[in-house]
Amino acid sequence: MIGLKYGIVGFRGKMGREIFEYFSTFGDECVLKKDVDSFEQTDTPQVIIDFSSPSALEETVKLCREHKIALVLGTTALEERHFEMLRELANEVPVVQSYNFSTGINILRKILREYTRYFSDWDAAMVEIHHTQKKDAPSGTAKMLRNDMNRDIPISSLRIGGVFGEHTVIFSNAGEVVEIKHSALSRRAFSIGVRHAALFTLKKQKGFYSYEDVLNENLR
Amino acid sequence: MIGLKYGIVGFRGKMGREIFEYFSTFGDECVLKKDVDSFEQTDTPQVIIDFSSPSALEETVKLCREHKIALVLGTTALEERHFEMLRELANEVPVVQSYNFSTGINILRKILREYTRYFSDWDAAMVEIHHTQKKDAPSGTAKMLRNDMNRDIPISSLRIGGVFGEHTVIFSNAGEVVEIKHSALSRRAFSIGVRHAALFTLKKQKGFYSYEDVLNENLR
Amino acid sequence: MIGLKYGIVGFRGKMGREIFEYFSTFGDECVLKKDVDSFEQTDTPQVIIDFSSPSALEETVKLCREHKIALVLGTTALEERHFEMLRELANEVPVVQSYNFSTGINILRKILREYTRYFSDWDAAMVEIHHTQKKDAPSGTAKMLRNDMNRDIPISSLRIGGVFGEHTVIFSNAGEVVEIKHSALSRRAFSIGVRHAALFTLKKQKGFYSYEDVLNENLR
Amino acid sequence: MIGLKYGIVGFRGKMGREIFEYFSTFGDECVLKKDVDSFEQTDTPQVIIDFSSPSALEETVKLCREHKIALVLGTTALEERHFEMLRELANEVPVVQSYNFSTGINILRKILREYTRYFSDWDAAMVEIHHTQKKDAPSGTAKMLRNDMNRDIPISSLRIGGVFGEHTVIFSNAGEVVEIKHSALSRRAFSIGVRHAALFTLKKQKGFYSYEDVLNENLR
Repeated sequence: MIGLKYGIVGFRGKMGREIFEYFSTFGDECVLKKDVDSFEQTDTPQVIIDFSSPSALEETVKLCREHKIALVLGTTALEERHFEMLRELANEVPVVQSYNFSTGINILRKILREYTRYFSDWDAAMVEIHHTQKKDAPSGTAKMLRNDMNRDIPISSLRIGGVFGEHTVIFSNAGEVVEIKHSALSRRAFSIGVRHAALFTLKKQKGFYSYEDVLNENLR
Repeated sequence: MIGLKYGIVGFRGKMGREIFEYFSTFGDECVLKKDVDSFEQTDTPQVIIDFSSPSALEETVKLCREHKIALVLGTTALEERHFEMLRELANEVPVVQSYNFSTGINILRKILREYTRYFSDWDAAMVEIHHTQKKDAPSGTAKMLRNDMNRDIPISSLRIGGVFGEHTVIFSNAGEVVEIKHSALSRRAFSIGVRHAALFTLKKQKGFYSYEDVLNENLR
Repeated sequence: MIGLKYGIVGFRGKMGREIFEYFSTFGDECVLKKDVDSFEQTDTPQVIIDFSSPSALEETVKLCREHKIALVLGTTALEERHFEMLRELANEVPVVQSYNFSTGINILRKILREYTRYFSDWDAAMVEIHHTQKKDAPSGTAKMLRNDMNRDIPISSLRIGGVFGEHTVIFSNAGEVVEIKHSALSRRAFSIGVRHAALFTLKKQKGFYSYEDVLNENLR
Repeated sequence: MIGLKYGIVGFRGKMGREIFEYFSTFGDECVLKKDVDSFEQTDTPQVIIDFSSPSALEETVKLCREHKIALVLGTTALEERHFEMLRELANEVPVVQSYNFSTGINILRKILREYTRYFSDWDAAMVEIHHTQKKDAPSGTAKMLRNDMNRDIPISSLRIGGVFGEHTVIFSNAGEVVEIKHSALSRRAFSIGVRHAALFTLKKQKGFYSYEDVLNENLR
């Protein structure tokens, strides 16, 4: 697990800095640092991590292809043409793409997809709480979780103070309550999953993977 | 505290039965049992507890006045003419009237009245959860608590399963969260307060009292 | 689902009365009421529900065998010889035996058995809260859940007021927290599961079943 | 509120950097940056904030006295001789000293000091949760809160993952639960209080103050 050589696209962004800080605690080496107006490389990375923007993707893909570097992509708002680039790249190197690298949220999704049916004769609802800077409500994650449940439940959204992000699914029948709650404490929630994904790519030759594939691999 | 002789108006109602069951655990004696179509009396009660309906109040007040019996009244939807009757009765015997005999809710009200101003630069919100039989939303208690806060905060209401009644006030600034939560577990939440109120009347000659008066008396 | 004819052994016990009350809301008919010193029968039940004591089991089994009646058994502290009786009876009629008929707890057990491994690099702990009358700590359910997790986690037990029963499993890594919490609100938590089990027996010819079998059947 | 000129002793410590980052969002100017082996000054600060160590206190006090600068002190493990220095300094300039600058914890302390007596016939307990790096259990804050309650309640301590710091006081009687919970989300919990204290010193001529004085002043 030690000695990962990696690169970051979007190095000075909030996630870029968090990933660098977290990976450093393992002794990993950041050998490629790219940003909108800067590029610094000291060695060939085993994997490139891109949390920047869709507009940077073309160059990132080119870098990966030329040097046979795996890709972990956390950029949001991708369009179909971006996915095409990624699938093409995945014929040559491993690519992990996800809109949410939180391990906990991904485990929750699996639980809800599998277990919501056990609660078919219970009532259900969701409460999600985020800081006041968050503009959308319900959160994208809340809608994704409801979608995983395949059940149309009410979502209460609170926007308050500095809460980083909480999602609670509540089931209740006449005599019981079951609550399943995820709290992200900080961006660390995501960088842990990003490193899992980076290590995952080292075991693969090529292919297009989701975070759920990473999760399942880790169980073996 | 032992040996209270009391009467119940609305004896076969849900609160009537709960009060009877709870008071019995102390060895109290129910010497007057009145309901819409029944009346049974074995002795003169020290206090009458009425959780029936406004239409029964006139007879209850008459009973109390004739025999100098204290009154604890939990009936809701009282009108001004009912309050007039009560204030008149209170010139002769002690009367405790409240729409909510939960000790915890009454303590919460005091805390919120006094401490909301400490959170003036925090965000605030309320979440209240009740069973699906509850028709109104937000709950009367939620509105009362918001009124006590003297601050216009959003209230999220969930109606789900068999939750008896939960009210959570949440304050958050950029670095902290403070939550103050009350859960009523069953009607026992109210009968405890009713007995506090009944014992309170034994120490008084006359007067019109709220549950907060009972609360403050108990602190001495 | 309407018109179940059932019997109760331990009719005047707390669970006996709760089961009677709950089943009545569906129009079910209690045609056999047995207790330590009483026996009342008006018809042959489709299923007998026994929440009494191990010492009553022999007679219950005899009743079931003679009249080909299914059995739902919630009695605790069974010994091997009791299980022998039950397995023998199960050759003739359906028998559902469980120490915990809470649907929610049984779903939680499945989730923990299957998903604890996904949290192998997370810390884990459990908090369980019960009323002050509960003598044992940790609760039997807490130990059962920990056993299902197949992981030696610390359990904090609180004994306080009238809390009916709460179990919370907490997982946390450096950036996230996942909490899975079950609250039993009242004995209704169990009677719901008992009725599921009773209806389950109607679909079976014979066999020895756990509550998990009932759970899985309900998914079809 | 804008344009505060302040100094930091312990500038490169975790709290030093957090204070600098938070104050910068208000346009405050850090004109004195002192650390174990560095000193940088561009102007005379209105207030010095010291979150370093007791060994640095003598120099900090000297600085404050010479230039008539107020002091906000968050250093822990102070001894009596340090308090003597501070009280002497407080004859000349305003000094705010506290072991915990979280506004929420300080509000909680006040609530518990005043309201615990209302719960005298309820059970009470505390649960506190912190990350695994925290060595002491119960936390200093938990013991302080219990002391404020003036009641010997059990404290359950969980050390798990990355939870920054949660303290929950639970009261319960046979029918109700009241929970009062504080969660610190990050060091921001403290820097908000530090800035309140810094602004508080601007209104004072001299004197030795606690964080509770700051809290009360803010209410006027």
